[in-house]
Order: sequence, then structure tokens, then C-alpha cells
Amino acid sequence: MSATRYTYLGPEGTFTEAALRTLPEAATRELVPMVSVPAALDAVRNGDAAAALVPIENSVEGGVTATLDELASGEPLMIYREVLLPITFALLVRPGTTLAGVRTVTGHPVAQPQVRNWLRQHLPDALWESSASNADGARLVQEGKYDAAFAGEFAAATYGLEALVTDIHDAQNAETRFVLVGRPARPAAPTGADRTSVVIWLRADRPGALLELLQEFAVRGVSLMLIQSRPTGEGIGNYCFAVDAEGHISERRVGEALMGLKRISPRVRFLGSYPRAGVAPDEVGQPRPGTSDADFTEASDWLARSQDGRA
Amino acid sequence: MSATRYTYLGPEGTFTEAALRTLPEAATRELVPMVSVPAALDAVRNGDAAAALVPIENSVEGGVTATLDELASGEPLMIYREVLLPITFALLVRPGTTLAGVRTVTGHPVAQPQVRNWLRQHLPDALWESSASNADGARLVQEGKYDAAFAGEFAAATYGLEALVTDIHDAQNAETRFVLVGRPARPAAPTGADRTSVVIWLRADRPGALLELLQEFAVRGVSLMLIQSRPTGEGIGNYCFAVDAEGHISERRVGEALMGLKRISPRVRFLGSYPRAGVAPDEVGQPRPGTSDADFTEASDWLARSQDGRA
Amino acid sequence: MSATRYTYLGPEGTFTEAALRTLPEAATRELVPMVSVPAALDAVRNGDAAAALVPIENSVEGGVTATLDELASGEPLMIYREVLLPITFALLVRPGTTLAGVRTVTGHPVAQPQVRNWLRQHLPDALWESSASNADGARLVQEGKYDAAFAGEFAAATYGLEALVTDIHDAQNAETRFVLVGRPARPAAPTGADRTSVVIWLRADRPGALLELLQEFAVRGVSLMLIQSRPTGEGIGNYCFAVDAEGHISERRVGEALMGLKRISPRVRFLGSYPRAGVAPDEVGQPRPGTSDADFTEASDWLARSQDGRA
Amino acid sequence: MSATRYTYLGPEGTFTEAALRTLPEAATRELVPMVSVPAALDAVRNGDAAAALVPIENSVEGGVTATLDELASGEPLMIYREVLLPITFALLVRPGTTLAGVRTVTGHPVAQPQVRNWLRQHLPDALWESSASNADGARLVQEGKYDAAFAGEFAAATYGLEALVTDIHDAQNAETRFVLVGRPARPAAPTGADRTSVVIWLRADRPGALLELLQEFAVRGVSLMLIQSRPTGEGIGNYCFAVDAEGHISERRVGEALMGLKRISPRVRFLGSYPRAGVAPDEVGQPRPGTSDADFTEASDWLARSQDGRA
Repeated sequence: MSATRYTYLGPEGTFTEAALRTLPEAATRELVPMVSVPAALDAVRNGDAAAALVPIENSVEGGVTATLDELASGEPLMIYREVLLPITFALLVRPGTTLAGVRTVTGHPVAQPQVRNWLRQHLPDALWESSASNADGARLVQEGKYDAAFAGEFAAATYGLEALVTDIHDAQNAETRFVLVGRPARPAAPTGADRTSVVIWLRADRPGALLELLQEFAVRGVSLMLIQSRPTGEGIGNYCFAVDAEGHISERRVGEALMGLKRISPRVRFLGSYPRAGVAPDEVGQPRPGTSDADFTEASDWLARSQDGRA
Repeated sequence: MSATRYTYLGPEGTFTEAALRTLPEAATRELVPMVSVPAALDAVRNGDAAAALVPIENSVEGGVTATLDELASGEPLMIYREVLLPITFALLVRPGTTLAGVRTVTGHPVAQPQVRNWLRQHLPDALWESSASNADGARLVQEGKYDAAFAGEFAAATYGLEALVTDIHDAQNAETRFVLVGRPARPAAPTGADRTSVVIWLRADRPGALLELLQEFAVRGVSLMLIQSRPTGEGIGNYCFAVDAEGHISERRVGEALMGLKRISPRVRFLGSYPRAGVAPDEVGQPRPGTSDADFTEASDWLARSQDGRA
Repeated sequence: MSATRYTYLGPEGTFTEAALRTLPEAATRELVPMVSVPAALDAVRNGDAAAALVPIENSVEGGVTATLDELASGEPLMIYREVLLPITFALLVRPGTTLAGVRTVTGHPVAQPQVRNWLRQHLPDALWESSASNADGARLVQEGKYDAAFAGEFAAATYGLEALVTDIHDAQNAETRFVLVGRPARPAAPTGADRTSVVIWLRADRPGALLELLQEFAVRGVSLMLIQSRPTGEGIGNYCFAVDAEGHISERRVGEALMGLKRISPRVRFLGSYPRAGVAPDEVGQPRPGTSDADFTEASDWLARSQDGRA
Repeated sequence: MSATRYTYLGPEGTFTEAALRTLPEAATRELVPMVSVPAALDAVRNGDAAAALVPIENSVEGGVTATLDELASGEPLMIYREVLLPITFALLVRPGTTLAGVRTVTGHPVAQPQVRNWLRQHLPDALWESSASNADGARLVQEGKYDAAFAGEFAAATYGLEALVTDIHDAQNAETRFVLVGRPARPAAPTGADRTSVVIWLRADRPGALLELLQEFAVRGVSLMLIQSRPTGEGIGNYCFAVDAEGHISERRVGEALMGLKRISPRVRFLGSYPRAGVAPDEVGQPRPGTSDADFTEASDWLARSQDGRA
């Protein structure tokens, strides 16, 4: 039954699976690895799964642009949760392999920059070949095709390997953001520390369109957390922007900004308002003066009185 | 009975009186000249008059800053009508006076720049002394204190003078805008060619405050027709701005801009939405794409659907 | 000899004279009261005087709009100094007059709001009539036409009067800003606490022109201290803006902003860069990061290197 | 000898090679396919090649993000030319294969969306597997691993295949932009139809940073043609933006905008000014009034005169 099934960007042993398992409800769901982000999301669209977990920002497993493009097109979907996972790699080998014995290594191409420095220092002569995913690399080590694979330490058990080295990473604070995506429904209630995601198309023939888009947010005091351009597939120069804003669609400042975007953009797609991972409501700053719901209500009341000659 | 009484910036024979008489209803009202703009408006405030006509822009009789300051402070008033009057002067003399016999001339100080060039050319040796109003100058000519006065041609009859020269003016297209002011009530219905007046106070300690104020209008596609700064009387550097915008408070783009101002400004005073003089609705350009009432309604509907997961 | 002559907005005994006497150099100049701001400035233009002191902001003697209009038009002039003078009034009477004996009072119309409350409380039955200047009012008291005049306490000696009451004022922190104006020359060197004055004309047919004007300053981090609109005399809807900005024309951020204005405006008039009165350099905040002269130089160097392929 | 060697994103038979061959100079250069964008660019960095051709926008061969990331980091490089290539696919098969005999197809994952609709219609039952590049797919068909590959028609000859179907594409006007990259040197002279590329880092802690960045361009009337965000690799929320602007670094408006970016951004990298492909100078609109080089020169002269008291 689909209501108990969650898909994710597989195969087994990916960081995406690890991220999914941090959700309490995962324990009571059937978790199904899918071959790609589109496959994971299509399962939701056609009712085979209740939700899908996919990477959306700064991934070391790829999939980010695929996720953005999939959410921007096709049957609408909505984001209900986000998960932040710190990313560090383990060097997985068949039991008994020593560092000296590693001549070939593999991993997802997107992971390569994260481990490049480590490789240069510790395995300068090892040959790198890319695999389709970090977990797939582990499988290929299990099958004897490579001596070692970079993957999450949690993948060792799945593939009968051992972690020869752990905690390998290049960038400081490397982490990936994942989102839990389902069919459109009413967003969860605001928590005080929320994020609103939207995709906005720009008029290609309008040089100042992005500036105008940003001003719709700025004038209502809504801060942006992510701005990610994507080609729309309609030729050079045509972009849409995936934008994450602080706040919840039910807040007046956010709602008014979204309506402003809706009016000036050829197309806007609301992707959801959901709690921010790892941020408590009291860690979120106050809205800029004049942009709280109370300020909006007071201004509405004043306008109504003005229209009645009672201001 | 006050309901039939209109005050105006006097004395009799001013351009303000001439402007007032262009209103059809003036024929059935008691028209009372007042000594100053504050006096004319106070008569409305305390119920002695139903309305007052006063100059508000580009006047050659002064009173503009007085009008702005009076509307910005004290008991609230509202503008219901505007009148545009082309301004040309006549040189009024006692019957029988010739140009050669004019050695002293008078007029309101604000009128002086309008007639300066004419004076230089035709009466280079005449001595100018200011009078309290153009009409007052006419009275002083009647009393024999001066040889000639600059005033509206219509003032000749009132003071038993004759117009020796007419159609004197300096600036091209010199005209003055007057407003009919009453106690606050529901504004007239929108005509499609309306003007909305408002006074907005700026935070003195905020260098970008005026820019933010203008952006509240710009982001909703509301064009400004007048921006007039006035000191607030609370010390150097404290300003309020009298702003006239195209459109009517009942239009969504105007209403949302006004609410935006209300939220970011320490104080806003709505002065009215009223038909533009001399402009037919079909002469007014269309609202910028995305700012019509229909666009606002569509965006509201979309927001509501998004909040329900049905967008 | 004109080089030793300074004119000012007279007559003798005005606040303007008092402001002028705060300048050390005034002691060695011939100080000549003039009948009006235009007269004071014309004396500079035609070489009869080296400089003129006139009120420019928040005056209780009028003249502010006259000053702005005179500086904006005609033969160019430049501001070299500013003087801030706190404004409090004394009630001047002929020796022997008591408060009970005051039935008529006079003063400049612009002073009236400053003393209105005091009058209501202490002389509720006294009749107010306006005089051409505060000092003129004092003269009329001397001549016996009125019982008392509101003027600066310093005017008592000039007119043989005595100050019955002193320190009368309404607004908190009432002060007037005066400027010393001369023929155009190289501005004084920057002090670190400077003000730059400029008049900028707006295209009447361009609704966003003021917003664009403000952005020329904002994008270079130049804060504005004064924005004063003035009709240009070319018909309703045509404005120029007198703008005071923090900083000196020789600072790069100020210079670049001025050039930006020059490019987008139909007309710009530079009125001078001069030390701020009453503000020490160490009381002035640092320029916004990225807008210091060092930042500009560094960026220029980087651009030059980029153009040479050496960045 | 490296001066005659150009690298490109290989293998042989890619669209990139086809784009490179459109350059007249390609006929006299040694053209070397490289395994990846970083490899192609590193050959330029270390002197093994004079230049490299790589895809930079809207590619159907991937490499776009790799190109942006490579240009943004590491040893600086510069863009000297751009090439636009319309993208249509051919279905390449071993000679003799018919459409009915195609059960497995391959191609680069980025090409898949371009051929998806065609596949659904004409080969609904064929199995798709991704290959490392379009040309690599052709090689795998040659080796018998798959029945057919999507690639450029020009790749048929290289791999001994024939084009069973040609002109397959999904998006209207699908084209890819490639750039010719070399070591930094003086940019080519402006042609009147130029493009300037730059990478700009944003302060992560500054919500309005992107708006400010765009205003640096807007205030100087410089239109943007491309805005592409890229994570900087320094953690969630850290972005740089690859921006292409109309115009040449030697134009004053472009130079001043670049200096503005340099001042407000933690880091800016100039990537070159070069002629636009397929656009003649007379097809490019005039600069916005007030932003031509003549306007800048006039404003500079005015500023100099103002500083001398001669404006």
C-alpha cells in the first residue's frame, strides 16, 4: 500500500538513505531506493509512494539540478520536510585490504572534489574512476572491480565492506540538504522557523526582471535563503529561479510577496512552506519592523478606516 | 447654515475665488473669503463651513506651503475635488491712468517673478512694493496708495479698476492647482482618472527612508504625480512628504501601496482620492501589467489555492 | 571695497545677522543688511559683496524657499560655510511696558507658529499682526505702532527696546541653518565632516525619476541629509530637488554619485562642499564598507589590471 | 608545441568538437579531445594547450556546471570567444540496423530530456542506458554494446555508424553556447556587440546582497544576459553568481559597474569581454540615455570643473 511507502534516491547505502532514516516516521515506512531523482518523484506522482526524499542543495551525490528541474516541471509536488546531513566520507574496502593495497578508487563524480585533497595526500598514485553513485561504487568494490570506494560509513555494512579511513571531507561544514516531497496538500502549520520554496519564471526579454523579483521580497522584508537559477529548456537566456525565503505562506508578508511575484511573473509555482531543520523558532530573528502579521493587520484596518473617512 | 457655506483664500478678487467659481455648485453656496489658508480650513474644521478652496500647487498667491502644513497637522481634513486655473495677470489701474503714469506697482510677492520680465520691459522705472495678496494690491490701488496692481483680470470689477494690460505672465503654461477640502468622509467613487493624496512622515535617523517610501509605490506600479517635502517643525532634518499618486484608494495597487507606507512610516495621513481635473479616464494610461485589480484578484485566488494545496 | 563686504538678510537685528556674527571673520567685514534674499545674493553676483549669509533650512524668518530658488537659478553661486543657530524669541517692548499693557503684538508670519502657544497662554487677548521681518516688527514697536514684537533678544539694543520675556519657543530644538554664499571657486579642502549641496532637475515625464536619483546616491553609500522639492516654474509637475549629501565632492563615492546624477538628469547644479557646523570629524560615521576612497582606488586598480589581463 | 594546440571536451565526435570546428583558426590547430572540462582547462593552465573549447550554457552534453566551477576557481583563465551551436540529434546505428531492430539506446544523461518525446513516440519499448558522453555512446554502439546512440550527426563518420534518423530534438531553438578559454591577457578590442563575463561572490550573511549586486549593474544601465548561481563549496547558503552582461570592460558604464561589484563583493573574478556570436553591432540597442561613453566623459569633465569652481 502506497501510503506506507517512501522512495529515495538510491541505491541502498547512499547519504540520501541515511538522511531519510533520521526521520522518526521512517521506522514505520517501507523505504524503496529508486534509480534516479525523477524515478523517486514519479513514484509519488503516480501514487506508488506517499513521499520521496531527494537531495536539493549542495549534494555530494548529484541530483540537485535534477530535483530542481523535476519540482519545477511536470505534475505539481510539494515539500513538507527538510533534512540536513553533514557529509563525510569513509574509504570502504574489502576486509583485509590495506591502504598500500589500494590502486583503484571509485565514487560519484560529485564526491570527487570532496576527497581530492585527501587522495593527493594519501593515495597519490591511485587511479580514480567514477561510478554512478557512491553506493554503487561500494557495490563495485564488493564485486572486486575496484579496490576502494568513497561512500558514507553507513554503507559498509550493506555491502560487506569495512571502513579503512573515516571522516574524509574537504570543505568545511560540508552538508547536504534533502527534502521530503509529496503530492500537493495544505502546508503544515507555521512553527516560527519556516522556509518557503517557490519557483519563479522570468521574462527573457526583460533585463531588469530578476531585480524586480527580488524587490517583491525586499519591500516586504522577506529575506532569501537560496537563489538557484535553472535554464527552462526553452532556449538560451530563458531561466527560472528556485527561491527559498524565510517564513511561511500563512504569514502576511510572505503571502503578499508571493502574490506580487504571481502578478509580475509569467509563471510561479509554490513548492511548500515547512519547518527549517536544525533551527529553533527562538533562533530566528524578528521580522523587520513593519512586516509582522500585526503590522499588516493594523495597516489593513487603517486602510479600511481611510476608505470610510474614519482614519 | 454651514452646509451651504464655502470658504476660500481671500480677499475677494483672488485667483482662488475665480477657481472656486468654476465649480457648478458654487452658484448655490455662500462664498466667504478668509484672511489666510489656516483661517479658511479652520472654518471647515469647526463646522462654520462645509468646504474650503485653497491653492495647493504652484500658486502665484502663496499659500501652498501653508496648505500643505495645515493638511498635514491638526484635525484631519480631506480633499474632494481639484481645480486647475491658468494664471495670467492683468495690470489694474484706476480708470484714466495710462502706462506712462504708472510709477508705483504692487502685487503679492509670489506673483512678482511672473511679472518681472514684463516690468523690466514695459515699466523699467516703476517701483514695486509687495502687498498681502494680489486682490489686496487692487484694493490699495483703489485707495490711491499705488498707481497699479497685478491681479486677475476678474478683480477689476470688484475694486472699480480697469485692466490696462492683460494676459501678462512669464512661465509657459503657468497654472495653479486648487483643492476643495472638507471634513473626512467616504471618498467619491473612482472615475478611472483619479488622484490620491497622502502625507508621509520619514524617520529622520534613517538615510534610506525616502527610497523605501518610493519603492512601496514603485513595486506596485503606482506612478507619482507630486512629491513635496515639508519640514515637520520637529527640528532640522525632520521631513514629511506630501505625495500625490495616480489612482484611487479603492484600487488594489493603490491600497496595497498605502498599507505598505503605513507599515514602514512612523505616520501616514490619507488626504483623499478624487477625480483629476482636466483629464478624462480614456486619457489615463493602463496600469502597468500585473497591477490591475483583476491581476490582484487573480493573485489572491492563487495564494488561497496554494495555501490549500490546490494551486 | 567689495572684498570686505558681506551682505545678509536684513534688516539689522535679524537672526540672520546674529548667525553672521558667529563667524570670526565677521568682525573684520562690513556687514550690510539687504531687503531680501535675492537682494543679498545679487550683491554677490554683481561684485558688490564678497559673500552673503542667508537662511536655508527651517527658518523662522522665511527666506528658505527664496534661498533655494535663487541658488537654483540665475548666475551660479556656491556655498562655503554653514551656521546653525538655535532660535528662541524674546518679547520686545518699549521700556516700561508690562505684560498687562500689551494689546498688540507683531513679528514675521513664519515666527508665529513658534510663539502661538506662548501667546495663547500669556497674552490670549492680544491682537497679532504680521510684519515684514522680526526685526521690522521691533522697529514698528519702537515707532509705537505695536505694543510688542517677537524677535531675537539681540535686536533689543538695535531698536532701543527691552526684552520683557526671553527664551520663547515652541518646537523642541528649534534651530535654523544659514549658509555663507559666494561666487564659484574651488571648494575648501575636506575636513572629514562635510556636506555637499546640489540641485537636481527631474524629467517631468518620467515617474520613476526621483527613485533613480536616490539610487545614484544609495548605490555608492552616500547618505542624504536634506531633500527639498521646489517647483521649477515650468508648470505643474515640474520639480527640482535641493539635496544635501554627507561627504565632500573630492571623495570618490560623492564624485561618482554626482557624475551619475549629471548623466541621468536634464540638469544638475553643484552648490558646494563645505564643513558641517557643530559636527566634529570623529562624530561622523565611517563610510559604508566598500565606499571609502581606498576602496575606490583598489577597485580602479583591479579594473586596470583586468583590462590588461593581470587581475 | 602548445601554441598550436586546442583542447576540447571530448571524446571525438561531440557537439563540442563540432562547435570548435566552426572557428576558422581550428583548421590550423591541433585539436585534442580531453576526458572532462577540468582536464581540457588544466591543459591550458599548465601550458600544454593555447586554448580550450568547453560548453558553458544550456548544454546537452553536461559540463556547464563543471565549466562554471572551473572558471570560478583555481588558476585564473579568460574567455576570448563564444560559439553558438544549434543542437539536434541523430540516431546512430551500425550500418544495416533498422528502427525495428533497436532494443537498446544510449546517450549522455543530459541529452535524454531532448530525445525523450521522440523515444516515447518511435521506440516506446527501447531500453535507455546512459553513457559518459554522446560520443561515447556512439563508440559503445560501434562495439556492439547497444543498438543505437543519440549523438550529433557528424559523429557517425568517426565511429563507422550511420544516421538512421536525424534532426531529433525536443525544445524549440535548442542550442548550446561554448566558450574558447585561454590564459589571461588583454581582452580583444570592443566590437559594439560584446559580452562581459564575471563571477561574483555574495556575502552569505547578507540577505540583500544579490539585490545590491544587481543594482550595481542597473544603476549604470548595464543589462544582464545570464545569471547563474553556483554553490561555492563553503557550505549551505554560500553562493557565487556567474553573470554575463552586455558590453565590454573598456566601456565606461561596464567598467564602473565592475568596480562597484569589486567594492561590495568579497570577491570578483573577471572572465573576459568578447564578441557576441551571431549578433552584429547594429543589432545591439543603444545604451540607455546617460550611459554612453560620451555621457561618462561629459560627466567627468563637469565634475572636474565643479571641483575647480568653474561648472
